[in-house]
Amino acid sequence: MKPEKKFRPAWSNEPPPPGSYRAIFKFGDPTGFKHPSDNWYAMLKEVFALGDDDFRTKPFEGRSPLELVRPPRLKERQISDLTAIVGPENIAADEYTRARHAYGKTTEEMMELSRGVVREIADLVVHPRHKDDVRRLVAYCHRENIPVYAFSGGSSVTLGLRPVRGGITLVMNTHMNRFLELNEDNQTARVQPGIFGPAYEKALNRAPERFRAGRRYTGGHFPQSFEHSTVGGWVVTLGSGQASTYYGDAADLVVSQEYVTPVGDFKTLAYPATATGPKVGDLMKGAEGTFGILVEVTMRVFRHMPANQRHFSFMFPNWQAAVEASREIAQGEFGRPAVYRISDPEETDRGLKLYGIPKLVDRFLQKRGFEPMARCLCLGNVEGDRDYTRLVKRKIRRVARHYGAVYLGPYGSKKWAQTRYHEPYMREDLNDFGITIDTLEAGVTWDRLMTLHQEVRAYIKARPRTICMTHASHFYPQGTNLYFIFIGRFESVADYRSFQAGIIDSILAHGGSLSHHHGIGRLLAPWIEAHLGSEQMAVLRAVKQHFDPHGIMNPGGQLGLDLEAHEMRTP
Amino acid sequence: MKPEKKFRPAWSNEPPPPGSYRAIFKFGDPTGFKHPSDNWYAMLKEVFALGDDDFRTKPFEGRSPLELVRPPRLKERQISDLTAIVGPENIAADEYTRARHAYGKTTEEMMELSRGVVREIADLVVHPRHKDDVRRLVAYCHRENIPVYAFSGGSSVTLGLRPVRGGITLVMNTHMNRFLELNEDNQTARVQPGIFGPAYEKALNRAPERFRAGRRYTGGHFPQSFEHSTVGGWVVTLGSGQASTYYGDAADLVVSQEYVTPVGDFKTLAYPATATGPKVGDLMKGAEGTFGILVEVTMRVFRHMPANQRHFSFMFPNWQAAVEASREIAQGEFGRPAVYRISDPEETDRGLKLYGIPKLVDRFLQKRGFEPMARCLCLGNVEGDRDYTRLVKRKIRRVARHYGAVYLGPYGSKKWAQTRYHEPYMREDLNDFGITIDTLEAGVTWDRLMTLHQEVRAYIKARPRTICMTHASHFYPQGTNLYFIFIGRFESVADYRSFQAGIIDSILAHGGSLSHHHGIGRLLAPWIEAHLGSEQMAVLRAVKQHFDPHGIMNPGGQLGLDLEAHEMRTP
Repeated sequence: MKPEKKFRPAWSNEPPPPGSYRAIFKFGDPTGFKHPSDNWYAMLKEVFALGDDDFRTKPFEGRSPLELVRPPRLKERQISDLTAIVGPENIAADEYTRARHAYGKTTEEMMELSRGVVREIADLVVHPRHKDDVRRLVAYCHRENIPVYAFSGGSSVTLGLRPVRGGITLVMNTHMNRFLELNEDNQTARVQPGIFGPAYEKALNRAPERFRAGRRYTGGHFPQSFEHSTVGGWVVTLGSGQASTYYGDAADLVVSQEYVTPVGDFKTLAYPATATGPKVGDLMKGAEGTFGILVEVTMRVFRHMPANQRHFSFMFPNWQAAVEASREIAQGEFGRPAVYRISDPEETDRGLKLYGIPKLVDRFLQKRGFEPMARCLCLGNVEGDRDYTRLVKRKIRRVARHYGAVYLGPYGSKKWAQTRYHEPYMREDLNDFGITIDTLEAGVTWDRLMTLHQEVRAYIKARPRTICMTHASHFYPQGTNLYFIFIGRFESVADYRSFQAGIIDSILAHGGSLSHHHGIGRLLAPWIEAHLGSEQMAVLRAVKQHFDPHGIMNPGGQLGLDLEAHEMRTP
Repeated sequence: MKPEKKFRPAWSNEPPPPGSYRAIFKFGDPTGFKHPSDNWYAMLKEVFALGDDDFRTKPFEGRSPLELVRPPRLKERQISDLTAIVGPENIAADEYTRARHAYGKTTEEMMELSRGVVREIADLVVHPRHKDDVRRLVAYCHRENIPVYAFSGGSSVTLGLRPVRGGITLVMNTHMNRFLELNEDNQTARVQPGIFGPAYEKALNRAPERFRAGRRYTGGHFPQSFEHSTVGGWVVTLGSGQASTYYGDAADLVVSQEYVTPVGDFKTLAYPATATGPKVGDLMKGAEGTFGILVEVTMRVFRHMPANQRHFSFMFPNWQAAVEASREIAQGEFGRPAVYRISDPEETDRGLKLYGIPKLVDRFLQKRGFEPMARCLCLGNVEGDRDYTRLVKRKIRRVARHYGAVYLGPYGSKKWAQTRYHEPYMREDLNDFGITIDTLEAGVTWDRLMTLHQEVRAYIKARPRTICMTHASHFYPQGTNLYFIFIGRFESVADYRSFQAGIIDSILAHGGSLSHHHGIGRLLAPWIEAHLGSEQMAVLRAVKQHFDPHGIMNPGGQLGLDLEAHEMRTP
């Protein structure tokens, strides 16, 4: 009997106990799980020099009930005034509900909660029923100087939801989650901001059944957080979907927005293009709740033609070849793929191990010179009209072949598409045993891509026993993004935070942008002024001062707008 | 002998006398002309009930020398300080030079100048040599409260260049007209703002010869004013090129901008996409000189593959069919044409008359049911990769056929492309005889297009003896633009202005935007607050106050930022 060989960690299959720390930090569906494969478990043990014994107890499960006594600090009168606006059924003052809506899915938040550390929470959680509620709430809070935070999908990975100054958190997904209007002529969808990705996409896909529409539509926006993020969240944080190479980023998809701010409400005009001066609508995108509350948004939608979708995957001999081919594809003027991703050698290698690569395929690849830790996986698909998808896929194959790639068929991409939303579930499994997985990402132009990749990797890999997997997944003629996934064991949250800060320093030092699609929140805020420059920050602060003279909208560091000089990181 | 039959007006073939009114208002190249054809002359006589006798004298030629005595109102000290900054060779105080740079190509300006009326001019005309000059000039004017205007191509059709408050006009095209850098990796071009369209395009087309580049490039931006407008002007007024359906509008082509403002200078980051909060760069686009001076800009460029260009032209049986087919093409997800235009029945009819349509073709068309004043001409081309252009043209033909169009071959589009930049030259020929041709244009969504077209046309045509030709020429999945060309005879400039105001009222009343690509300037400024709403105007004014606390940047009505309530038009 060799029981050790068969040992498998007791990965959690239980929904978190209601009211527990884990119920706050667990990603996604409480009953959703994705565990490391046996291969991956073996890899983790090897990388971190651990044995099975290290996976017998879970020090950071956080299944105990939240212990917190923090009475709201609002005045009785204020609480009753706010209650009068939305009704008692739409307001909560209990500690668990307030803590539940004070957190996103930032790794740091999980690390702290799983150690029993609770940061600031709002005084009240409020569920507005409609934009009139939002109007009254914001006007009241403006008058009374009460901070206002907004919680929609709750999937922020930048500490964007933390109610640093207390006050109220508006939960946008409870009532304000409706699909309001499909305009087939203009191919636009008007929705409330709290509608989740799947509900939005389903309404569009089923437009004939639901709206007697003549066609089916798609929103074209599929971020990793798709199942647990909302249309409004996509817009106010400048998100990108996995098919953005074709459909564009969230900012590109917006036609019109309606905002409630402390100094008034407005709706931007819904024209496809105008030359009517600087566009206030553009300025609102990415404001992350610091200027006002998005209460309605009109998005571009597209014809949904899943039958025309064509998947592809390739293996490139090395990173350089993968990058050059991708640039050629992005600049070739023959149309664009929807999903398009290239993995660097470490991600390719670990990915193949994680998902298992048939020995025969591996031998075939190696024989043809596609060596482990050199070869790079590419996968994606093309969407649109049937003749168009045929053409674009054919062109992509031709370019890839020119750069030495071997075509691996559609299977890899299809499999990725099926499982793509489940990846984040693994982070709790690792955290249970004190292993931390996190990501940072940056926009980058083609001329700096190789250096950025090399230098940031070098920083991460300089730390002993640290995994770093990188891919590029959003392509433009002028560049792409780099998405760094790193896995390590950290003594403490502070230890982790300091390592993370070094990665951000390295990204900025080597030409990456501070964020490609995660937004800024509070996590990256200390770097924003150095990144944008003080002149541009002064513009944003002037706009902030205009909309929010009392500083009540998402205050306490968000976007760096109200950080003091000593809180800024100066590289 | 029937001499009357052979009479032709003495269309002007003389460059305007130096120093004359005409030298200020004449469009484009002083030696450039395009005269009405005999057919058109006959049409003008018919429409306006004129005889040859009405075309024997030219009451509005404006060939006399500019008569103006207006000493600069700046202090001696200020003039000498400004002269010290740029050097005496880069500053001018004479009335003609000052008037020359106080005007764009707005019809109203031509009407007034040809009647000897001169409006406000700057006190000095200054030619900055580089961005340091601009920095010093703006800083000095900020300190001394001297208004600063910018003149680049001088092709504004919105009174955008009028130095209402005197001060200085910076001429950006004299020295700051250089092509600074081509980045082939990123496919971007960094240029000074005063570079003219042809110089910019030629540098890109000839990149191998000029920069030892590996490929040829195109800027993809070809406005009607291409030959006489600058890259900087395109950006600060939100222009659109005639191939914008594929390449995008000027705003879409901008990667990074560098500005000098009264409160500081900055350059926006040059990433293809970021999620780093509201984008100050977006806010600067379309500011029309009211926030600061654009001193450098980085633009997206594209591979130049003229051999792959495929032209097409069609005749649709009616406007409805042309619009529906165009919407299908814009939303079909099979790629996009570069140039794509549809003319309404009156434009089609007059265009065919103007350029002459072979009798045989006309007979063929009429026999097949394509009746005059119903049929609509469509023309355009496809650019990009060879297989792509083949596919897109094939798809367009298929859609057009489905909507009842007959294919007319590539000839019409090619001919249009050859002559497209010459059309504006005709306006002086008409003005010489007291006939006014002008245009107004609007962005519009598909669902409002038919109504907008019908109602604005109805307003224009309600005026006796008035021509109205309309086309749509910039296509998006969500809509297009309508471009109204109207020709009439007006008693006075005031009479004309009041008619024009009615058209603008009608555009706004029926769902058009205040401008699709001409910008706002001072012409449309009285309507801007009603169009955008007072909340959004307040945001723009807050930004204006931030950048320009002394109100020196293009003051006096531009963008409506400093208009008083009684100067606003309230529909």
